[in-house]
Amino acid sequence: MALLDQINEPNDIKKIPQDAYGDLAAEIREFLVRKISVSGGHLASNLGVVELTMALHIALRFPEDQVVWDVGHQSYTHKLLSGRKDGFDGLRSLNGISGFPKRRESTCDIFDSGHSSNSISAALGLVRARDLTGGKRTICAVIGDGAMTGGEAYEALNNASHLTSNLIIILNDNNMSISPSVGGFSNYLSDIRTSDGYIQLRDKIHDSLNESLPGVVKGISRAKQSLKSLMVPGMFFEEMGIIYLGPIDGHNVKHMVKAIEAAKRVNKAVLIHVCTRKGKGYGPAERRPARFHGTPPFAIKTGRPVKPVKKDTYTDVFSSAMMKLAQSDPSLVAITAAMEDGVGLQDFHAKYPSRFFDVGIAEQHAVTFAAGLALGGLRPVVAVYSTFLQRAYDQILEDVCLQQLPVVFAVDRGGLVGSDGETHQGIFDLSYLSSAPGLTVMAPKNGLELEEMMRFALSLGKPAAVRYPRGSAYTGLSEFNAPIEEGRAEMIYDEGGVLLLAAGSMVCTAVKVRKILKERGIACSLANARFVKPLDTQLLRSAAGKYSMVVTMEENVKSGGFGEHVAAWYAEAGLPVKLLQVAIPDAFVTHGTPEQLSEMTGIDAETVARRILEKS
Amino acid sequence: MALLDQINEPNDIKKIPQDAYGDLAAEIREFLVRKISVSGGHLASNLGVVELTMALHIALRFPEDQVVWDVGHQSYTHKLLSGRKDGFDGLRSLNGISGFPKRRESTCDIFDSGHSSNSISAALGLVRARDLTGGKRTICAVIGDGAMTGGEAYEALNNASHLTSNLIIILNDNNMSISPSVGGFSNYLSDIRTSDGYIQLRDKIHDSLNESLPGVVKGISRAKQSLKSLMVPGMFFEEMGIIYLGPIDGHNVKHMVKAIEAAKRVNKAVLIHVCTRKGKGYGPAERRPARFHGTPPFAIKTGRPVKPVKKDTYTDVFSSAMMKLAQSDPSLVAITAAMEDGVGLQDFHAKYPSRFFDVGIAEQHAVTFAAGLALGGLRPVVAVYSTFLQRAYDQILEDVCLQQLPVVFAVDRGGLVGSDGETHQGIFDLSYLSSAPGLTVMAPKNGLELEEMMRFALSLGKPAAVRYPRGSAYTGLSEFNAPIEEGRAEMIYDEGGVLLLAAGSMVCTAVKVRKILKERGIACSLANARFVKPLDTQLLRSAAGKYSMVVTMEENVKSGGFGEHVAAWYAEAGLPVKLLQVAIPDAFVTHGTPEQLSEMTGIDAETVARRILEKS
Repeated sequence: MALLDQINEPNDIKKIPQDAYGDLAAEIREFLVRKISVSGGHLASNLGVVELTMALHIALRFPEDQVVWDVGHQSYTHKLLSGRKDGFDGLRSLNGISGFPKRRESTCDIFDSGHSSNSISAALGLVRARDLTGGKRTICAVIGDGAMTGGEAYEALNNASHLTSNLIIILNDNNMSISPSVGGFSNYLSDIRTSDGYIQLRDKIHDSLNESLPGVVKGISRAKQSLKSLMVPGMFFEEMGIIYLGPIDGHNVKHMVKAIEAAKRVNKAVLIHVCTRKGKGYGPAERRPARFHGTPPFAIKTGRPVKPVKKDTYTDVFSSAMMKLAQSDPSLVAITAAMEDGVGLQDFHAKYPSRFFDVGIAEQHAVTFAAGLALGGLRPVVAVYSTFLQRAYDQILEDVCLQQLPVVFAVDRGGLVGSDGETHQGIFDLSYLSSAPGLTVMAPKNGLELEEMMRFALSLGKPAAVRYPRGSAYTGLSEFNAPIEEGRAEMIYDEGGVLLLAAGSMVCTAVKVRKILKERGIACSLANARFVKPLDTQLLRSAAGKYSMVVTMEENVKSGGFGEHVAAWYAEAGLPVKLLQVAIPDAFVTHGTPEQLSEMTGIDAETVARRILEKS
Repeated sequence: MALLDQINEPNDIKKIPQDAYGDLAAEIREFLVRKISVSGGHLASNLGVVELTMALHIALRFPEDQVVWDVGHQSYTHKLLSGRKDGFDGLRSLNGISGFPKRRESTCDIFDSGHSSNSISAALGLVRARDLTGGKRTICAVIGDGAMTGGEAYEALNNASHLTSNLIIILNDNNMSISPSVGGFSNYLSDIRTSDGYIQLRDKIHDSLNESLPGVVKGISRAKQSLKSLMVPGMFFEEMGIIYLGPIDGHNVKHMVKAIEAAKRVNKAVLIHVCTRKGKGYGPAERRPARFHGTPPFAIKTGRPVKPVKKDTYTDVFSSAMMKLAQSDPSLVAITAAMEDGVGLQDFHAKYPSRFFDVGIAEQHAVTFAAGLALGGLRPVVAVYSTFLQRAYDQILEDVCLQQLPVVFAVDRGGLVGSDGETHQGIFDLSYLSSAPGLTVMAPKNGLELEEMMRFALSLGKPAAVRYPRGSAYTGLSEFNAPIEEGRAEMIYDEGGVLLLAAGSMVCTAVKVRKILKERGIACSLANARFVKPLDTQLLRSAAGKYSMVVTMEENVKSGGFGEHVAAWYAEAGLPVKLLQVAIPDAFVTHGTPEQLSEMTGIDAETVARRILEKS
């Protein structure tokens, strides 16, 4: 690591001679593969942008200049080049560096990202602020082609088109459909297009065409279909008033530095189209970029996970439930937003291709589209991660619930997700979902119940959400499988004393809490809430006189969650009951193992038991 | 109304002879102007689409065929032509017809709309459902050029581009920048483009260009800027794989019928670009389309409102507060999403053009953009209606609150808005805003306090929201103006008995409740909550022993709102207190006067007083 050893602070890369760029890139890749093979993390996307990030650090100055990384999981090389090399041993661990840009980590991180398609908006805000305050810095957004399917990116481009000052947008295109052969010609064109000569050349072509064959020009202008095949990509952007440079080989540092330098001189929004290869330089990741998008620790030689991959996750259960349900109901259709693997719809897609819709990173469209499918007589299941479904809050309210359409939301990754941290915790869903009038909100206690809840949700004929966590499905309490009835909890152990009323994943925690309490000689009952909305008011009413305390338990923020609904119901009913609400406090939750984060937020069994004992 | 009298059911328009189309359009306009002059409602947009709607009803069959109206405020002629003529006397009134499409009103309304940019998504869902169930109907989305600035429309277009069956998208373009002179030529082209001859023509042009001047063609393909001026609009759509027809004169029924008939035969998504004039046919509305977007009752002759326009609304107060604040703080900037007039930023725009940003109907971008502005050292105020800010829930959480950026949300139209109905009621904001960690959520009791709260919010240096209602600002209680402190309520009348703890607009209601109670001999105290988050726990604690009952009052749904927070806090604190929660029940709220809707939802003074007496 002779070269990487010389890079300990921002801008150190500028000391590396040009002819060593290739070697440095190789060292960075070796470093990343080695570190991520131990810690796990996002690999393929990071290997793809090694040279792009180098070019940015060569052409720009940090922290004076500012780069907004869309989604942000591709920022590892940026962290490496901005002085955080030593942090990689703690990558994605509690108190270690984050797998995403974080302002608290470095002044070289200007925007905390995690969700998709918002980088151009943030960068445009930074640009307008720079211009109003008389600043000079270069501001840049790096956005993937996948993120360009999200509507917010388009809203931002639409606003960037009027810009009369500089904004650089780097489109990191790792789609293989762009032929590498155009490289040379496009590099040449990138040069002339930003030179003064270009404007003159352009006008000359225009004039000469107009003079020599005015009829033909009019003809062309209408015959767009035919012209399209002659056009390079980029028309889309230029139509919007954004200067387009590219496509450029995203593994050629010198070309990219040249393009960035040229782009800096333009007083408009400039899009540099860069073609990269996901997983570049590491065989297993090049061959299977999706598998190495986010990877657990793996053996470098084979690429195989060090520990056996967790089986029978909630996602697996959902996956097989969908296969069963699809077979018996031909009107069942599935929608996902660029997360086919993540939400477990590969088998569904393979078996029912015409009933499967991946809409891209477009959660808003996913939900309204599902409303349309439901209106057309189908039974849509929208499978999206909890944190990303936040994007479609308005559409859940206005397009689904207002019309009481039978759309089922399969909300995966509900609760604490662990090492992805703040932006990925699914801790708001019970709140925002239960604010929607007429939406039934459920959470299963174990894998078996997830399948039953999906079946029940589809039978309801109105909007419903089933929310379940990341990771292995709980297999306990499988002997408790009373039929699901709307708004009815399931009593597990009714033995007086303290009543633990737990939602979803917290039922498993409640089993542990009960064990601790019983060891202390405290009687403890346990009910599986099943429904966060509507509440089981019959159970609540009967519980008031019966138990010494009612403890609501949820893996969700307190504000607007299950516990508040229960507390409000008791207050309204005027029933005196000793109530303890276990929920995530009013704060974002950092990265770490789910166990660490549970402890930190006070929703682990020990803390809950202690709180109950204190209150008893 | 000789012609309109013959139209009493869907498809009756098909009996009208072609040469009478002009007369029918005139009758429809007369009818709309007459009715809306009495009831108030959306006028300019409806006058603009008279011929377009006629063309749709001539070329399609209702209810077999389906039209999704984006936003939906332009659906009056559709209602008229689908048998709802008699309903117009009750337009936008309680139990009368809605100003928006409503499935419960007619089978000819297929999708309840109200928010923008989602029509293509819904129509695409209907198309996929039609295709999977073997249906034959024509499905059409009608979307304005304004709505095309919303990202969801782009997400949908992106998904429509792969379609191999028919979907018609009508782009209703009422921007005057499209020159009417292209009309004839474009009609001609619309004809040939959908004919078999077109494909051949296209290929011929392609080949001849390639043969005769291959070098020039390559030159052109790169010199896009220069070619752009020769291009018709539509390249954007064709780049996405969507067939483009147009532009077509949106006031020529026959041409539009022909285009729709042609579009029906294409097995792809087809966009028909129609140019219309807002307010068409009624002088005052043609001259001032913005004024006649939504109008109160007016005198037909002059266009002047019958009653004097309400002055000193909360929006007016916000408007003047912004002028004062902007003067003393040069870093203050304002962002709105296509609502400059609605949110009261005209004066700000005029005086501080470089500090004003109208981003279009793009709430997501608005919020992330504001985050970027804040990161760049400015103090952004995002002024958006409560119901539309729902679109940016994810961005409020992830881009503003996660980073604790000093963005101030001025949330106008919070609470019941009246005649616009379900889709426009601002009744979820206290819930979704208070679920965001670290967001301070306020509501002023009167106009004076709104100004003070804006000042306070800007002084906080962290995310804050100020939520205020539609209509005249309350001027009462102006003698109570204790300085605002974070998380502290304002005691107005501390006289023991029942404590009314009211948020924002409900303080005015509480004054009336108090009067009723006192007349019944019941002592009553009144506190202005000011903060929905953080709660004034000091007041709550002291109130427990002091008052016979604590009544929380809010113009927001119960789930996740102010009352639940208070109830949860009391439950957690273990303080016994008789609690009554006044909030909007778990249901969407129809159209009517705000007074009627308050009564209907049980948040009016009489109902509140009755409930208190019952509980006393």
